[in-house]
Amino acid sequence: MSSLVGVIMGSTSDWETMKKACEVLDELGIPYEKKVVSAHRTPDLMFEYAATAASRGLKVIIAGAGGAAHLPGMVAAKTVLPVIGVPVKSASLNGLDSLLSIVQMPGGVPVATVAIGAAGATNAGLLAAQILGAFDHDVQARVTARRDRITQEVLDNGELP
Amino acid sequence: MSSLVGVIMGSTSDWETMKKACEVLDELGIPYEKKVVSAHRTPDLMFEYAATAASRGLKVIIAGAGGAAHLPGMVAAKTVLPVIGVPVKSASLNGLDSLLSIVQMPGGVPVATVAIGAAGATNAGLLAAQILGAFDHDVQARVTARRDRITQEVLDNGELP
Amino acid sequence: MSSLVGVIMGSTSDWETMKKACEVLDELGIPYEKKVVSAHRTPDLMFEYAATAASRGLKVIIAGAGGAAHLPGMVAAKTVLPVIGVPVKSASLNGLDSLLSIVQMPGGVPVATVAIGAAGATNAGLLAAQILGAFDHDVQARVTARRDRITQEVLDNGELP
Amino acid sequence: MSSLVGVIMGSTSDWETMKKACEVLDELGIPYEKKVVSAHRTPDLMFEYAATAASRGLKVIIAGAGGAAHLPGMVAAKTVLPVIGVPVKSASLNGLDSLLSIVQMPGGVPVATVAIGAAGATNAGLLAAQILGAFDHDVQARVTARRDRITQEVLDNGELP
Amino acid sequence: MSSLVGVIMGSTSDWETMKKACEVLDELGIPYEKKVVSAHRTPDLMFEYAATAASRGLKVIIAGAGGAAHLPGMVAAKTVLPVIGVPVKSASLNGLDSLLSIVQMPGGVPVATVAIGAAGATNAGLLAAQILGAFDHDVQARVTARRDRITQEVLDNGELP
Amino acid sequence: MSSLVGVIMGSTSDWETMKKACEVLDELGIPYEKKVVSAHRTPDLMFEYAATAASRGLKVIIAGAGGAAHLPGMVAAKTVLPVIGVPVKSASLNGLDSLLSIVQMPGGVPVATVAIGAAGATNAGLLAAQILGAFDHDVQARVTARRDRITQEVLDNGELP
Amino acid sequence: MSSLVGVIMGSTSDWETMKKACEVLDELGIPYEKKVVSAHRTPDLMFEYAATAASRGLKVIIAGAGGAAHLPGMVAAKTVLPVIGVPVKSASLNGLDSLLSIVQMPGGVPVATVAIGAAGATNAGLLAAQILGAFDHDVQARVTARRDRITQEVLDNGELP
Amino acid sequence: MSSLVGVIMGSTSDWETMKKACEVLDELGIPYEKKVVSAHRTPDLMFEYAATAASRGLKVIIAGAGGAAHLPGMVAAKTVLPVIGVPVKSASLNGLDSLLSIVQMPGGVPVATVAIGAAGATNAGLLAAQILGAFDHDVQARVTARRDRITQEVLDNGELP
Repeated sequence: MSSLVGVIMGSTSDWETMKKACEVLDELGIPYEKKVVSAHRTPDLMFEYAATAASRGLKVIIAGAGGAAHLPGMVAAKTVLPVIGVPVKSASLNGLDSLLSIVQMPGGVPVATVAIGAAGATNAGLLAAQILGAFDHDVQARVTARRDRITQEVLDNGELP
Repeated sequence: MSSLVGVIMGSTSDWETMKKACEVLDELGIPYEKKVVSAHRTPDLMFEYAATAASRGLKVIIAGAGGAAHLPGMVAAKTVLPVIGVPVKSASLNGLDSLLSIVQMPGGVPVATVAIGAAGATNAGLLAAQILGAFDHDVQARVTARRDRITQEVLDNGELP
Repeated sequence: MSSLVGVIMGSTSDWETMKKACEVLDELGIPYEKKVVSAHRTPDLMFEYAATAASRGLKVIIAGAGGAAHLPGMVAAKTVLPVIGVPVKSASLNGLDSLLSIVQMPGGVPVATVAIGAAGATNAGLLAAQILGAFDHDVQARVTARRDRITQEVLDNGELP
Repeated sequence: MSSLVGVIMGSTSDWETMKKACEVLDELGIPYEKKVVSAHRTPDLMFEYAATAASRGLKVIIAGAGGAAHLPGMVAAKTVLPVIGVPVKSASLNGLDSLLSIVQMPGGVPVATVAIGAAGATNAGLLAAQILGAFDHDVQARVTARRDRITQEVLDNGELP
Repeated sequence: MSSLVGVIMGSTSDWETMKKACEVLDELGIPYEKKVVSAHRTPDLMFEYAATAASRGLKVIIAGAGGAAHLPGMVAAKTVLPVIGVPVKSASLNGLDSLLSIVQMPGGVPVATVAIGAAGATNAGLLAAQILGAFDHDVQARVTARRDRITQEVLDNGELP
Repeated sequence: MSSLVGVIMGSTSDWETMKKACEVLDELGIPYEKKVVSAHRTPDLMFEYAATAASRGLKVIIAGAGGAAHLPGMVAAKTVLPVIGVPVKSASLNGLDSLLSIVQMPGGVPVATVAIGAAGATNAGLLAAQILGAFDHDVQARVTARRDRITQEVLDNGELP
Repeated sequence: MSSLVGVIMGSTSDWETMKKACEVLDELGIPYEKKVVSAHRTPDLMFEYAATAASRGLKVIIAGAGGAAHLPGMVAAKTVLPVIGVPVKSASLNGLDSLLSIVQMPGGVPVATVAIGAAGATNAGLLAAQILGAFDHDVQARVTARRDRITQEVLDNGELP
Repeated sequence: MSSLVGVIMGSTSDWETMKKACEVLDELGIPYEKKVVSAHRTPDLMFEYAATAASRGLKVIIAGAGGAAHLPGMVAAKTVLPVIGVPVKSASLNGLDSLLSIVQMPGGVPVATVAIGAAGATNAGLLAAQILGAFDHDVQARVTARRDRITQEVLDNGELP
């Protein structure tokens, strides 16, 4: 089945974080592609990737980057697909720079921003699934089942030492 | 036509910001409903609103709140529809509290967070349209046309004094 | 004796921090219950827990959570018992997000917020005891004795190498 | 009836904020006293105020201060009554300095901190009432009624322009 | 004479700030061009502008933007000319977001960042002049003369009321 | 010789930082006393210490504390000797809370604040010496000699690998 | 009588803030001089001012500056007199940049930093007086009298509306 | 060949960061000199270094410093050569203090600021090369070749596990 979600990141060093998004997509059976696409080192590839994403059948793009994180916002400027931005934790400012660089987009070009780091990457995968699920009952049922399972785990294991 | 997007906010004082989301939805011809739903003052209404949103036909929820902004995240905990969170500018910390309260969700329950304030509200409307547009060519065409028009306006008016 | 204080937290990973509250309550002989209750993963349990707390005899609730920490504020929205919020240190922003998510509540629904992390959890236990102590001379006497003992320890050990 | 709550503040300029606490106490029929007590300008008065508060019949102290806000924490060091701290918005750092100076207390001496500014002052009054209400059904009933009234107001007025 | 400096900005609303750069360039007799080029609204124009800048004879590019400010960094990714970034003061976070989005570039693509707002724009103009002046004695002499004049003004007017 | 400088700190855990102040005073031959004095755990001792400092012959007080650091400001409120405040690095906010709690004193009661952590403690010792040195040529000569020696060390060792 | 305190500032625009320091010195009868000395615009004057300050009879220097505020620290590098730094509120970051630029001095060269803005300037004047007062009973008596008067004013006017 | 770039830093401990700038200059065959020059410990050397830099043939100065980082701005005040400032990561505030102390220069004296830490140092070397390259085709060709090589590396290695 052709990919519905594109997962891109600015550097291979972002994989440690971004693999969490892929794990969720794997778990929910959502076909996706993944690739390193750097806003600053491969700007032309980035534009081509974004500009052709819709015609290649993608429905959602997940983009992770750190520091002066321009990848999500620039991809969003070149596609009208929903773009989810994951702020990767940065070396000196703990991802606050990544977060502000991604979320504070000007009116006209939205980026759906999630939390800094691994929790954010997990949620990027889930958010993509929830977007697909709003239009595909099977996907939505799997998201619901996953959530119910986690709720049950908390209920079953909520007693403390 | 029944509403596809639900626009909710914690207080009538958030309307000044959140109307920007509605203006974009109006402009793009996307049916929506709007309502004050407060996490802290009407928690039961909030849960009911979120829990019934999908069955009422909504595809996306936009939730705006300020300060310790719990509305977007709590709505997201009660639905598997995609929830877009708008951090409303707060009285003392300029919306940094709103932003962190909305975006830093734990793994499992994502909120698609946009920028603080009016630009964020505008982008929440656009993001909802882009999500719908990924599955509806007409909507996507209108989003594309809006974007092209704005690009052309910049190109036509880019000379400075 | 039935519990007077309810100690809840969003995740078992918060126990490392929140056990400090329980240690103080143990030390002061105050009966309490403890439980994992997650705002985002078990929202219905959270509401039920909060709504029934007063009728079950609780006088104070201590709630700890990290990141976009909604547990204390949402519990506070569903009970008129005093709720003490403990901001648990978060992975990327050191608990600043937890603190602002808990303390910046809108007018109408207060959360009694203490310091980030272990010191805050200790103080949450003490604050609960001080609240009880204002209406129970025995408890107040034990709080006073604990404080006097600590003062004396500083006075006895205040010489430096 | 003798005062159950003491409302103090570092300066008459804090009254604009702190009167919100008094308004709530008036509204709920809770007897209180109010006074300017400055940590830095009247330190001896502050210590005497705190040390005699319990014996004078107070059950809760509300203390507001801004900047390097030492009043709540120092009062808390001289009494075992619960002390609620209100961070008053400061001239240059918008109350972030006030908040951190009040909330980040070391283990051993808690301050129940509320939001920066007027919303925090309102909530300080409510929190005091909720503490009293946990041990006085009449007070608790009035807090509940106030909250129900506000919930109803939101429900009745939740439609937007 | 053909332009040596290109002054670009993301929006006409940035002109109020960025005109300070142009005033300095005018004052020092340095030929420049100015234009609105938006990273998010006119991404293709931005890439073309940057890619052709060197061949059109520009020696330095000054780029101003606010919020999630991607213009300076993306222009820098498409040219090897030195790019000076001016963080324009933003609506909610006072330009801290603009600053971090511009300065925190990853290794490989530098942006020469100056202060937030008007002082930064003035300094962007001066920095461009100093870069040119390092290779052109006439320009350097004019920069030196400007600086000497300002020093003398402080020395002549340093007495206070 | 009787002590000219009093070095106090809120906890023995602050000694690791505060010993740097003592090392400088030792090195410069300035007599000092050192002691744990806690604002929150030994408030009466703190007031007595501050109130009697001048009459016991002290000329300067150095006070170190972390988190909601009230020791320097409260000591300053009880003496007219110059008080130097050292913000000790805190567990969660890296000393930013300590810094703001110490430096943001209201008009009327100054605290001479130095940098967070060990560098600040070193500088607290030096600042005390410089204050004494302004009125004692021997001390000033030793401060000058120390500084000249350090300058020479940089000049002698300024070549890099 | 020759000046004991030198009050300098980076720009005439700092006078609005720094005059508070002079008002306190006037009130306490302490002879001082005041002057605009800019680290960046008159660096040589700054070095000469600092290097000759002690020999001209000054005992304390008060230096105010904003933004990347280098004046206090650079003056401190050229004199062994105690230097008090006043962070002037800046245009975009509210003086947080001024504060950090002044207070975070490396070990070896202390600056006695006070609060941001007018309260800090007032306290700079008082701190200078307290330093002088530690070695001059008349000055100390006047500082004590001023403080007692202010305490009395609070005691006399502590009742609220 | 005589040095075109001067690389200076406040302390030998900055070398770990600043060597990244030297590595880039080595790689691109640009002659440079390197030296420890401290604003606070060797202020006269700093002024002499800056004042003679242009006449010694330097075209660009790279200055790295941490904390209250005054070196880049003070060097910039004593030369009209372009000065690149590298904020070195600091012990307590992760380089945010270094960044603000360097970038927030007042109008009149620019510092070309790069990112905090090693990435910033690398970019300082590149920015110096890009400045030289704007006037020297050979240097520019080497910068372009380096960048193309890195782009190709990303393209060749963009597949993820």
